[in-house]
Amino acid sequence: MEGIHSHVTPVRWRGGLELLDQRALPHRLQWLRPRRMGEAVRLIRDLAVRGAPAIGIAAAYALAQEARRSSSLARLRAAAARLAAARPTAVNLRWAVERVVAAAAEAPPTGRAAVALATARAIHEEDAAACRAIGREGAALFPGQVALLTHCNAGALATGGIGTALGIVRVVHAQGRLLRLYACEARPVLQGARLTAWEAIQDGIPVTLLPDSAAASLLASGAVQGVVVGADRIAADGAVANKVGTYPLAVLAHRHGVPFVVAAPRSTFDLTCPNGAAIPIEERSGEEVRRLAGVRVAPRSVAVFNPAFDVTPPELITAIVSEHGVARPVTAASVRALVG
Amino acid sequence: MEGIHSHVTPVRWRGGLELLDQRALPHRLQWLRPRRMGEAVRLIRDLAVRGAPAIGIAAAYALAQEARRSSSLARLRAAAARLAAARPTAVNLRWAVERVVAAAAEAPPTGRAAVALATARAIHEEDAAACRAIGREGAALFPGQVALLTHCNAGALATGGIGTALGIVRVVHAQGRLLRLYACEARPVLQGARLTAWEAIQDGIPVTLLPDSAAASLLASGAVQGVVVGADRIAADGAVANKVGTYPLAVLAHRHGVPFVVAAPRSTFDLTCPNGAAIPIEERSGEEVRRLAGVRVAPRSVAVFNPAFDVTPPELITAIVSEHGVARPVTAASVRALVG
Repeated sequence: MEGIHSHVTPVRWRGGLELLDQRALPHRLQWLRPRRMGEAVRLIRDLAVRGAPAIGIAAAYALAQEARRSSSLARLRAAAARLAAARPTAVNLRWAVERVVAAAAEAPPTGRAAVALATARAIHEEDAAACRAIGREGAALFPGQVALLTHCNAGALATGGIGTALGIVRVVHAQGRLLRLYACEARPVLQGARLTAWEAIQDGIPVTLLPDSAAASLLASGAVQGVVVGADRIAADGAVANKVGTYPLAVLAHRHGVPFVVAAPRSTFDLTCPNGAAIPIEERSGEEVRRLAGVRVAPRSVAVFNPAFDVTPPELITAIVSEHGVARPVTAASVRALVG
Repeated sequence: MEGIHSHVTPVRWRGGLELLDQRALPHRLQWLRPRRMGEAVRLIRDLAVRGAPAIGIAAAYALAQEARRSSSLARLRAAAARLAAARPTAVNLRWAVERVVAAAAEAPPTGRAAVALATARAIHEEDAAACRAIGREGAALFPGQVALLTHCNAGALATGGIGTALGIVRVVHAQGRLLRLYACEARPVLQGARLTAWEAIQDGIPVTLLPDSAAASLLASGAVQGVVVGADRIAADGAVANKVGTYPLAVLAHRHGVPFVVAAPRSTFDLTCPNGAAIPIEERSGEEVRRLAGVRVAPRSVAVFNPAFDVTPPELITAIVSEHGVARPVTAASVRALVG
């Protein structure tokens, strides 16, 4: 199992934070080196790095850079607040920056930079381990030869390891049981088309891309045996905020008797958030829908509804998989037992 | 009611067939004049004209041109077969060309061109009248102030008149009751973004565009009081083939208690087709998904699932509206009573 890996990684530390620019994929492999805090915040907001675990790791390294620049705790806390506000839905981001700040606060001023970097490295390594555990636990939920459907990108590009949902897919594939991965393109930003399809091809996973609106036909056809997605935040009752388009997949999977599995590390759970209605949903610019790759595809003046995420209620989720095991059925009690 | 009209039309006859090139919208208003049969077939296949009623009208005029060129019935029948095969799902296309051929076959050779053109004009005018009737009948299904959600383009650009689904929207708007029209963008070809948003703005209808995957959030929010869509073919049991992404909207509308209404003229019903499983579903090129507005958005080599249509079962449809009235609930008996 330890042999399963991915050829791609979204965040690395080479004497400083480096981010693979996911906005340029699948066209160009380009590493960015944001040295100033404002740059890091902007790159997180502009989706150069995305995926709840990956932005947590990136933000942790950004704070390590900040701690190297100044031993001021007030300054570190201000930077943490700016990073956390860049993407309000993903709770890993807030969790990661709070962990780095707390560790730095325990250290003497001269040791803060080293402690902040060590904490960021630990967050990164723990996430890689969590992905492996999630892959193993989740793969066991889909016995036999299976085709799996996923949405957006919950892969290596979204994490510090082999991915959460795609971690499960990679383990099933390594076991010789994956018939095919189906990937919804995930308009408006097309993380499925640009990232999941690319990542799957890099690692030799058989993949078929589809428009989001064709997933219903695919589920109705009986061609897939499971849906696997990631999460940006999981509330105490098991409600899951994830990329917009996840909730309709859950409704359709339920209608067609296809298991719907959410995969996420412990850091994605927010037990202070009682339910789905309490999760803030980021609304993004209408230009993401009016344009693509600089090309206008709709009238300039048209109003746009562009929520980045939606909320799937627990009763539609077959199981939630974390590195600690599986919550099934998904209830407040099973979520608490899993990660409480 | 007769005062309700649209500023846009997709097909006209000015001494020959003229098509508004819908591939160029919303950027350019450009009329095409296909004089040869091969050109007309290609323009229908390539979506220069689309929408089940509009392609029926365009094909009828194309046959009128062909009848002017030659009085050979065999040649007219061969042209009709080529046109009908250009888009296999839309039954109006087959119906329209069969009607023109049958009328021409009744006429003496010297009268065939005139009869073919008169038949094409009748198909066009009858469709405009059907749209008005559908608008009136359908608007009555949504009392009070309402926001409506639609998919793809079942508007003036898809018909010979004010549209089917958008005919209903136009009547509600003319009655001062339309809070807002929400339009799904309809990947991969973006008829919602490029056509419905543009058409609504042309006619002063308040419109908000959304990615297909955000429709579930919108329906869950309670912001819309009805979903209205067109159809490409309606089977004898009331199953509806329409643009891919229609079926998931029906499932979600049902879950959230929002009426789901299909609007289509008589010519869209195919009583020889017993049910949804018997409707042929056109699969289109993967390049429609790998590219967006001419820009490549996915790896060149990725496999693609790209069905143009999906099938909504009758039990998810609140009502079907035609120019003859309303089938509600939707059953084989109510469909037969409506159009049999």
